[in-house]
Amino acid sequence: MFLLKNIIVGQSGGPTAVINASLYGVIQEGQKHTGEINTIYGMRNGIEGFLKENVVNLSSLSEEELTLIKTTPAAYLGSCRYKLPEDLSDAVYPKLFQLFTKLEIQCFLYIGGNDSMDTVSKLSRYAKSVQSTICFIGIPKTIDNDLILTDHTPGYGSAAKFVAATVREISTDAGIYDKESVTIIEIMGRHAGWLTAASVLSRTDKMANPLFIYLPETAFDTETFLSDLKAAFTHTKNIVVCISEGIRDAAGTFICEYSHSVSVDTFGHKMLAGAGQYLEKLVKEKLSVKVRSIELNVTQRCSSAWLSATDINEAISAGSIGVQAALEGNSGKMIAFVRDSNTPYQLSYAGVDVNKVCNREKKVPLEWISENGTDLEPAFIEYCLPLIQGAPEVPTENGLPKFAFI
Amino acid sequence: MFLLKNIIVGQSGGPTAVINASLYGVIQEGQKHTGEINTIYGMRNGIEGFLKENVVNLSSLSEEELTLIKTTPAAYLGSCRYKLPEDLSDAVYPKLFQLFTKLEIQCFLYIGGNDSMDTVSKLSRYAKSVQSTICFIGIPKTIDNDLILTDHTPGYGSAAKFVAATVREISTDAGIYDKESVTIIEIMGRHAGWLTAASVLSRTDKMANPLFIYLPETAFDTETFLSDLKAAFTHTKNIVVCISEGIRDAAGTFICEYSHSVSVDTFGHKMLAGAGQYLEKLVKEKLSVKVRSIELNVTQRCSSAWLSATDINEAISAGSIGVQAALEGNSGKMIAFVRDSNTPYQLSYAGVDVNKVCNREKKVPLEWISENGTDLEPAFIEYCLPLIQGAPEVPTENGLPKFAFI
Repeated sequence: MFLLKNIIVGQSGGPTAVINASLYGVIQEGQKHTGEINTIYGMRNGIEGFLKENVVNLSSLSEEELTLIKTTPAAYLGSCRYKLPEDLSDAVYPKLFQLFTKLEIQCFLYIGGNDSMDTVSKLSRYAKSVQSTICFIGIPKTIDNDLILTDHTPGYGSAAKFVAATVREISTDAGIYDKESVTIIEIMGRHAGWLTAASVLSRTDKMANPLFIYLPETAFDTETFLSDLKAAFTHTKNIVVCISEGIRDAAGTFICEYSHSVSVDTFGHKMLAGAGQYLEKLVKEKLSVKVRSIELNVTQRCSSAWLSATDINEAISAGSIGVQAALEGNSGKMIAFVRDSNTPYQLSYAGVDVNKVCNREKKVPLEWISENGTDLEPAFIEYCLPLIQGAPEVPTENGLPKFAFI
Repeated sequence: MFLLKNIIVGQSGGPTAVINASLYGVIQEGQKHTGEINTIYGMRNGIEGFLKENVVNLSSLSEEELTLIKTTPAAYLGSCRYKLPEDLSDAVYPKLFQLFTKLEIQCFLYIGGNDSMDTVSKLSRYAKSVQSTICFIGIPKTIDNDLILTDHTPGYGSAAKFVAATVREISTDAGIYDKESVTIIEIMGRHAGWLTAASVLSRTDKMANPLFIYLPETAFDTETFLSDLKAAFTHTKNIVVCISEGIRDAAGTFICEYSHSVSVDTFGHKMLAGAGQYLEKLVKEKLSVKVRSIELNVTQRCSSAWLSATDINEAISAGSIGVQAALEGNSGKMIAFVRDSNTPYQLSYAGVDVNKVCNREKKVPLEWISENGTDLEPAFIEYCLPLIQGAPEVPTENGLPKFAFI
C-alpha cells in the first residue's frame, strides 16, 4: 500500500531577509506533490516549539499569503536558538521521534545556519541509530555566508546588497561638509568578514569611500589604523571606514573587548558590541577630528529594501530542492550551491553531508584580502557581484512593505 | 535695456533624501527661463564655501546627470553649518555682496532648515538696508519637519517612510523568538517628535508593535516606562519601543544626559546620543529581560530605499516655485506648503515671511499625542500617511543605487 507522507518544516537561528523565501519554496514544492504529500506542517519557533507541540498546518495557505511570505523578512514560523544534546542517548531524542510518529512525519526540513545544521546532523544520526526512515534535510540560511561546502548561502546576497547600498548612502552623507571627518560603520560578522567585505561594492569611480575595510580574517592594529587615517587625510577630507563587529588584534583579542565586557549566547558564542564605538572614541582622542560610529545593526539582516532577486530565487530553489531530496529518501544532507560559471553567472544545487558542514566556519580567503588588510581584491568583487543582482517586487500597502504574519 | 540674470543656489544644514530633488527643481526651472536667466551657479558647501568663492556652473548639466541628482541623497553641492553674524554691520555682509556683484547674482536660493532660513533672513534684511535688488528665497528642507508656517517640510515624508518601513522590519525581526524581549529604537528628533511619531504607521492589524512611542513633546518618566513594560509583558512577548533621541523628563533633563555628557554644535544645539543605550541598560538591570537598543542613525536621513514620490515631487516643486518667486522679485520669503485637502490629498504653495520662520520650532500638537504620552492619535496618522505615498524610480547600476557626484 502506498502511504501519503507528512512533511514538517522549521526555521532556526537569526533572521535573514530570505529565510521565508526558502519556506515559500518548501510549501510551494510540497503543494505540487499532492500524490505523495498529505500535510505540510510548520513548527513554531523551530525544534524548541516543536517539543511543546507548537505546530501549524501550512498545506492550505492561500496564494496571496504565500506571495507575501516570499518577501517577508525574519522568520514567519518563528525561530529558536536551541542546541540538541551531544549525547544521542538523551531522553529528548525518543521524545522528538514520538512526536514525529504522532504527526506521521516522513520528511523534516530545517532552514538555518551552522547551529541548525547541527540539529539536522544529530536528528539524522539518531534516526539511523534507531532505524527510522524519516529524512532530515537542512536548507542553508545565513547572512554570514560562513557555511562550508556551499559557494554561498541564501540570505547573504540580500544582506550584502543592503550593506553595499547603505554604505554608499552613508558615504554620500558623510562627504557633505568641508571639514575633516571619520565615519566608522560597524557591520555584522563575528568570525567571518563576508558581509563587511561587501562594502567594497559601495565605491564608484567618483567616490573612493569606504577607504578602509577591516575583516576579522586579518589582525587589526590600532596604531597602523591611526597612522593610515592620518596619511589618508592628506588627500581625502571625509573618510569612511567599514569594520566587522569581530575584528581582533594580532593576539586574537576582539577590539570591542578593550572597551566592553562580552557576554556569551546559548551556543557559547561571544556576543559582541562596540568595536565601532571603541574606535570612535580612540580616533576622537588621538586625531581630534569629527568622528561618528554607525552600527548597521539588525536592519542589515531584516531589510526588505534591498532584496536581491538572485538571492530570493536561490532561497526558493533551496527550499523546493530540499523537499525533492527528502521525498527521494535522502537524509543528513544540506542543500548546497555550486557555482558552475561566473560570466554568465550559473548555479546548480547539490546535497552535501550535513555532518561535515555543522560547527565549521568558512572565512574570506586571505588571497581575496589586500596584503595590508584594509581592502578587498577584484576576485572578491567577481564573487560577490552576481549575488546582489535583480530586485523582486515587494508588495506594499499604504506606501509601506506588506508582510505576512501568522 | 533688459538684463539677463544670474542665479545662485546653495544647500545648508543636515542632509535629507530629497534636498537634491529641490536642487533639481531649481536647475530645471532655471533652464526653462533662458530669456531671463543667463547662468545658474551652485555654491559648494553653502554660504561658507561661497565666501571662499567655491562656486560651480550648473547651467549645462546634462539631462542624465540631472536625473541622477533627483534621487541622490545628501547634498550634491556640499553643505555647511555656518551662522552669519547677528550684527548686520559685520564685515562679512559687504564681502558677500561684493561677491554677488562679481558674479552678477540677481537671485539667491538657499535650500535648508531652520538655521538656513536664518541665513536667508539676514541676507534679505541686509539687502534691504543697502538698497540691493538681489532676491533671497528659502527652500525648506528638514527631516525634522519642525519649520513653522508650512504644513510640512520636504525631506520629512521620505524620512518618515524610512522610519515606518524600518520599524516594521525590525519589529518583524524582534518577534521571532519565544522569549520575552524589549527592542528600543532611537529615532532622530531633538525637540520635535515628528519623525518618531511616524513609527506608528509601522503597525498592522496583525502586529501591535511598536507598542510604545515616546516623543520629546511630553515628559518621559522612567518609573512609568518600566511599569508599562511589565504590564505589557502580561499580553505581549516581544515589545518594541520607539523613542526620540530628545526625550526628556518632567524637569526638562534629556534622558541621555543621565548616562552621557553632551556636547554643543556650532549653533549651540546640544548634540545628543544615547537615550536608547541608557534605557537599554536600565531595562536590563530592572526587568532582567533580553533587551537591545538600535539607533536608526544617519540612514534615516540619507536612504534612497524608501523615498516617497510625494516628497520628491513636492521638493522639486519647492525648488522650481522658489526660482519663479525670485524672478518675480520676491525676497525674504520661504516657499511654504499649504494643505488644501486631506482626502484627496491636495497641496498648494505660498511664500511666507522667512523672518517669522527662522529660529522657531513646530512641535507635534499635544492633541495628536495620546493622553498617557505613549501613542499617537488618528489625527496624526491622517496627517502623515499622504506624505509617504508613491515610490520614485531610483536609477541603479550593478544592482546598487546610482548617485550623482560633483
